[in-house]
Amino acid sequence: MNFNIRDATKEDCKDELALYEKMPDQVKISHEDLERDGFCPNPCFGCLIAEVPEENKSKEGFTTVGYALYFYTYSTRKGRAVHLEDLYVMPEFRGFGIGKGLLSNVAKVTKEKQCALLQLSVLDWNTPSRDFYAARGAQDLTVTEGLHLIRFDEQSLDDLGNDAPKN
Amino acid sequence: MNFNIRDATKEDCKDELALYEKMPDQVKISHEDLERDGFCPNPCFGCLIAEVPEENKSKEGFTTVGYALYFYTYSTRKGRAVHLEDLYVMPEFRGFGIGKGLLSNVAKVTKEKQCALLQLSVLDWNTPSRDFYAARGAQDLTVTEGLHLIRFDEQSLDDLGNDAPKN
Repeated sequence: MNFNIRDATKEDCKDELALYEKMPDQVKISHEDLERDGFCPNPCFGCLIAEVPEENKSKEGFTTVGYALYFYTYSTRKGRAVHLEDLYVMPEFRGFGIGKGLLSNVAKVTKEKQCALLQLSVLDWNTPSRDFYAARGAQDLTVTEGLHLIRFDEQSLDDLGNDAPKN
Repeated sequence: MNFNIRDATKEDCKDELALYEKMPDQVKISHEDLERDGFCPNPCFGCLIAEVPEENKSKEGFTTVGYALYFYTYSTRKGRAVHLEDLYVMPEFRGFGIGKGLLSNVAKVTKEKQCALLQLSVLDWNTPSRDFYAARGAQDLTVTEGLHLIRFDEQSLDDLGNDAPKN
């Protein structure tokens, strides 16, 4: 199947969020948030869109069938890097190399921006994704170095913030 | 011991990097990089500094004895969040609540910027750090949800980027 990869525009935000409609509990932001955060002078993220020709559009009528959303990170050792937050292809468009195409384009952006690393996180049970990245040369830092991801949510953040020393 | 926490300035970059001098193999960036990346109109990171009074300065003569370096992340589910990249206190200044003070101030920044989450990563063997965060209400997502961190380094990035489809 032919597909094309391009930078996202403000107009893609509604479609992108629609991809998540099946898990409304998890979505805390609106397409207006996405538009404001991603398409301003200092955007919080970058996004690539995969689209197919009109004649191959999805059952629901979409020609944008996948996306990759990323942002920049920083370390005092390596400098700027890229974190790939989402890599999504609609189920009916999987198996055509669209995910690989999106990932390769994010790698290209990473190099163009002179970042040394591309990182992402993936869940243990998601063997297809883990295999997909491993087959393309990625290292699983949780397995090889024992790296754990730790999170403070709103309640623990409140408790911590209230405890901040007054200068 | 009295200590004060404040935002880092350009002038702190040399001191901050000096803290890493014992592991030169791991440091790929210079203090000029830090100055450029952190103290420009659109900084790549934020940084808080812990300092002690002149009479408590370190053996090597530093009054800046710790720091916390963070940046903003983004998810289509939760919006903007904060990632704490480094939390460091010089060994001779540990046990006085300086690490806790830095962490609490990062939590305060997180709330002020209306971010819902504060994240960080920590190595498996680093039990003191894991206990420190757990005692303050953090959840270990690698343990509870099976989250793995995946990395592409320069070689695999080159291979991937060269494979990007030509539009």
